[in-house]
Amino acid sequence: MTLGERQGDEKNDSKYCGVETEFNDDMPQLLSLNIHGGFDFVVAPLMDPAYRPSLLVSSNGGSGVLPFAGSDLVLSPSQWSSHVVGKISSWLDLDSEDETLRRDSEITLKQEIAWASHLSLQACLLPAPKGVTCANYARCVNQILQNLSNMQLWLRIPLEKSDDDDGNRSPNSMGEEHRDSWEMWNSFRTLGEHHSQLSVALDVLSSLPSVNSLARWFGEPVRAAIINSNSFLTNARGYPCLSKRHQNLLTECFNHSIQIVISGQQMQNFPTGTSVSNSHNSNNQSEGVEGMQRHPLRSYLDYIAYLYQKMDPLPEQERFELGYRDYLQSPLQPLMDNLEAQTYETFEKDTTKYIQYQRAVAKALVDRVPDEKASTITTVLMVVGAGRGPLVRASLQAAEETGRKLKVYAVEKNPNAIVTLHSLLKIEGWEKLVTIVSSDMRCWDAPEKADILVSELLGSFGDNELSPECLDGAQRFLKEDGISIPSSYTSFFQPVTASKLYNDIKSHKDLVHFETAYVVKFHRVARLTSPQPVFTFNHPEDSTRKSNHRYTKLRFEIPTDTGSALVHGFAGYFDSVLYKDVHLGIEPSTATPNMFSWFPIFFPLRTPMCVQPGIPLEVHIWRCCGTSKVWYEWGVTSPSSSPIHNCNGRSYWVGL
Amino acid sequence: MTLGERQGDEKNDSKYCGVETEFNDDMPQLLSLNIHGGFDFVVAPLMDPAYRPSLLVSSNGGSGVLPFAGSDLVLSPSQWSSHVVGKISSWLDLDSEDETLRRDSEITLKQEIAWASHLSLQACLLPAPKGVTCANYARCVNQILQNLSNMQLWLRIPLEKSDDDDGNRSPNSMGEEHRDSWEMWNSFRTLGEHHSQLSVALDVLSSLPSVNSLARWFGEPVRAAIINSNSFLTNARGYPCLSKRHQNLLTECFNHSIQIVISGQQMQNFPTGTSVSNSHNSNNQSEGVEGMQRHPLRSYLDYIAYLYQKMDPLPEQERFELGYRDYLQSPLQPLMDNLEAQTYETFEKDTTKYIQYQRAVAKALVDRVPDEKASTITTVLMVVGAGRGPLVRASLQAAEETGRKLKVYAVEKNPNAIVTLHSLLKIEGWEKLVTIVSSDMRCWDAPEKADILVSELLGSFGDNELSPECLDGAQRFLKEDGISIPSSYTSFFQPVTASKLYNDIKSHKDLVHFETAYVVKFHRVARLTSPQPVFTFNHPEDSTRKSNHRYTKLRFEIPTDTGSALVHGFAGYFDSVLYKDVHLGIEPSTATPNMFSWFPIFFPLRTPMCVQPGIPLEVHIWRCCGTSKVWYEWGVTSPSSSPIHNCNGRSYWVGL
Repeated sequence: MTLGERQGDEKNDSKYCGVETEFNDDMPQLLSLNIHGGFDFVVAPLMDPAYRPSLLVSSNGGSGVLPFAGSDLVLSPSQWSSHVVGKISSWLDLDSEDETLRRDSEITLKQEIAWASHLSLQACLLPAPKGVTCANYARCVNQILQNLSNMQLWLRIPLEKSDDDDGNRSPNSMGEEHRDSWEMWNSFRTLGEHHSQLSVALDVLSSLPSVNSLARWFGEPVRAAIINSNSFLTNARGYPCLSKRHQNLLTECFNHSIQIVISGQQMQNFPTGTSVSNSHNSNNQSEGVEGMQRHPLRSYLDYIAYLYQKMDPLPEQERFELGYRDYLQSPLQPLMDNLEAQTYETFEKDTTKYIQYQRAVAKALVDRVPDEKASTITTVLMVVGAGRGPLVRASLQAAEETGRKLKVYAVEKNPNAIVTLHSLLKIEGWEKLVTIVSSDMRCWDAPEKADILVSELLGSFGDNELSPECLDGAQRFLKEDGISIPSSYTSFFQPVTASKLYNDIKSHKDLVHFETAYVVKFHRVARLTSPQPVFTFNHPEDSTRKSNHRYTKLRFEIPTDTGSALVHGFAGYFDSVLYKDVHLGIEPSTATPNMFSWFPIFFPLRTPMCVQPGIPLEVHIWRCCGTSKVWYEWGVTSPSSSPIHNCNGRSYWVGL
Repeated sequence: MTLGERQGDEKNDSKYCGVETEFNDDMPQLLSLNIHGGFDFVVAPLMDPAYRPSLLVSSNGGSGVLPFAGSDLVLSPSQWSSHVVGKISSWLDLDSEDETLRRDSEITLKQEIAWASHLSLQACLLPAPKGVTCANYARCVNQILQNLSNMQLWLRIPLEKSDDDDGNRSPNSMGEEHRDSWEMWNSFRTLGEHHSQLSVALDVLSSLPSVNSLARWFGEPVRAAIINSNSFLTNARGYPCLSKRHQNLLTECFNHSIQIVISGQQMQNFPTGTSVSNSHNSNNQSEGVEGMQRHPLRSYLDYIAYLYQKMDPLPEQERFELGYRDYLQSPLQPLMDNLEAQTYETFEKDTTKYIQYQRAVAKALVDRVPDEKASTITTVLMVVGAGRGPLVRASLQAAEETGRKLKVYAVEKNPNAIVTLHSLLKIEGWEKLVTIVSSDMRCWDAPEKADILVSELLGSFGDNELSPECLDGAQRFLKEDGISIPSSYTSFFQPVTASKLYNDIKSHKDLVHFETAYVVKFHRVARLTSPQPVFTFNHPEDSTRKSNHRYTKLRFEIPTDTGSALVHGFAGYFDSVLYKDVHLGIEPSTATPNMFSWFPIFFPLRTPMCVQPGIPLEVHIWRCCGTSKVWYEWGVTSPSSSPIHNCNGRSYWVGL
């Protein structure tokens, strides 16, 4: 019946809450009890836990019907698929030293999943690996996944990591005592080549690892969080509740579409008669069907619903960007291609950005023309890449605001935008103030030199839309002491876990997609360290160095308490100094609020790299310039070397 | 003029010896001096070492002809390509912190290689990386390699590794002091995706690392060994010589087609007048052209020639197998396909093998029939998979040798071989002793049960030609106390560096070839540890276990003094107990001598794995059985996890 509705996030799967049950011969009754008890789905065993293939073979000679719980007819197909997650027998141990147990486990696993698949279940919960090694388990699941149509397999992983992990241990964690369950998961999914139908169900225990250690899971394909009733506390009024840290974890789960499953027994008697949900100010009205007994885990469910409902509604910008979450877009090529009206329309709506530009121009005007000369000196300002005029407007407003006289040139290479610019001038009565120039700034023969050059040529990674090359071309008509707005910009890199993005890229089955940078609204992504600056460009560039070629080597240290983590690639950002203290950017720690023109960029790694505590991640990035294109190359050299990505710009480049 | 000829190995490139020279404006003179001095080729700088692009640009404005040494016309095209290896300027430092030097290096590298390529040189020698990091150098070379036609690039690497390396250091060797030059090479080639035109020129220094550390290089693409005159010792008679360890290293180089290049100055005056080569009993007659001065490095060259000539000639079997070295063959599918006459012909020539079989049958006959009953008891022996009859012959000879009476059934599924068998019986007069059965042993309805079952169904990896499945089928007609020859067999695994094999597989650009096992005569391969047993099959199999499914986990420890090494895959072998102490096999430590029926098998890894000292290599191997095929899956879990290879036998399988 859902945990509730969250404004702005109606499609979030995490509003459905499940319950883990024991084996029950009578599935219709089991389902009815739990659905009427308030749960949306059950995670229920499909086969009698006493079943062992090896016993069966010796008793009736290997033929015989498997001891399934009833037939597929006991529920309708839609009941099976919308209300039942198959719980694979928990006695399975595919890496046991006992060969009979191992063979029994292997046969049973295949039988149960075949049965679940026959029922069109959406998912099955696989038991947690039992030992320090999981290779045979991973191999069997990998074999099964090759022929599995749509079903998801949720591998149960206890959320545990010892905190005394000091980062000095040997990297050979597999052969020794397993202290970080993430490593088991990483080995399992690596053996299975990151199959997209294999995901994680986290067993949330009563004590939680560090915040950093938890955070890496949000870049992994976690589909469910199983929380046992014994992880709950009891509040002053006798009702179940969770520690603050557990509450935060669950909120993060809700935000990442991770479904909650409640497991275990009712731990104590809660006050009866009073609705628990009321005690939490919940608007969840369902009290169970009349005459039916209250579900023993109902109080826990009500508390989870309460947590769900008390989340803040999604901010408007987040809501607007919901559809873009984790969706890979190729960056614009505004230099080679002309932007379309729709694109201009979208970007022009970003008020925050133009307010920043207006502030920067105003400051530059005041610096350039003292108050006493305001009425005599006319500043020549050129907007290079004027588009449909938003920077012209911002500049004129700055002039008006500061009382400075302005002569504006609006230089634009897109002839379609020029049409709109002419119309704008007429409508606004700017004909005397603004000269429209239909030309590429790199080859325009300007009639005079500018005091101020204003441009908005930045991409998500700063220089990636070739602002440096364009402004180098425009610098010819900037006065020696002229000002460029922006006056500099810097790109940033940050290692991330991004399992979803990796799988989307992998699905193309080619090299090109692994050597391309994508614009993407990160959501199911774990940011593993603080970002570090990559390349900086200054304008005007007064050095004699002509080249915009750049090379930087970065060294990231992942916090030790994170544990190991898988790096699927690097998030890229930029920050730009427009003028003096007026900046604009998307680097998370200094990001300009309420700005939506740029999503981050993502540079993938062809092979994700596992980084262990205490061992630095070293990455090299090149900006390479050819005669007709600019491109990046990138590669990792520690903890081990990757191939150099995008050699000679073979996969991804920006046309000049 | 070559170091000499080695019997049986005439095509070995290592008979050509080069000399490293200084820059000389006059290439014809340089070449003439050195060729007449006895060398086959020069490794000579192509450009004045004083050249720096940044100086050139500021002095003449960036235009201008590059200061090359003369034109391409000074030598004929064939002189250039057969006698000159281009030595790239040694001042280049592409990872310098000094940006001007870095840019100069990058430009010069590209110019020199373009020039060398214009001259159609066969190879260029790249200077050794200078610092602890080589990422930018690797990137530039990688860019160049993408568009380089046929030229080889030899990266110079000093052969050094500190011996106090105790295996307990942190795996992050790149960021710290570089004590093992192999790691630099490994990083360099990994960044460049193992390009097949990038190889190694080892700088042999006066002190050598451990034997294990040297050995790993023979699995790498080493093309040249550069030995400086200061690495030579002086013998009692005043001539240059090398330490025993250096001599062994050079012999290994000769065996692996690695060309020697002598560098440096004449270190002292050697006795004149007497030919040094005579002092070593060399038959190398060339004493230089009359009237020309003796080459200052001639005495060193003569010593190298002496070492070359004193090698033992290649053994006959090695000579026979020369053409198979490092050549990947798909394993036979003798069960699905019928062998051809040519194949029978080859295998029947392996006398050693059939002598072992004859010994085994003889022992079994004597065990089964005591002397006193020799004339009364007739032993029923069935050759299953009789082919064209070699085991029939061996069995009859064993009967004759021991005086036992024998009744032989020759069971063969290949109707073409049956034709030959009938003819053999007539020729040999065996009609009364041998019954020919044209049937697959798995479905033959035998008229009586056998005392002894003889088969030769083993592949390079023992069970990989489905001997277990065939003999399980034949066991029906073996008496309860009957004997199978072979009575058991065991497969073995051994991690290897095999850069050449890896590149051959990679050149197919698909997954299938990386998930296939190949039969291959290993040559340019480094065996990194002792082999370990994988699967054992016993015949007859008395347990009730019906399955021939197997799973084994192996843990290899590479000797600490090896240093790090790259594992490209696993060599596979078998050993078989024919009967009691009579065995047959190719596992190196116990291999049956003078047997040529089996080359080893090679299980590749899709991504080579770097294993560092002290960290175990853990590999899992499965033998999986389906209804119509048998296949292997394999994967590594330490030092990190690989994908499971050949899931569900998707790439490689053996048909039942």
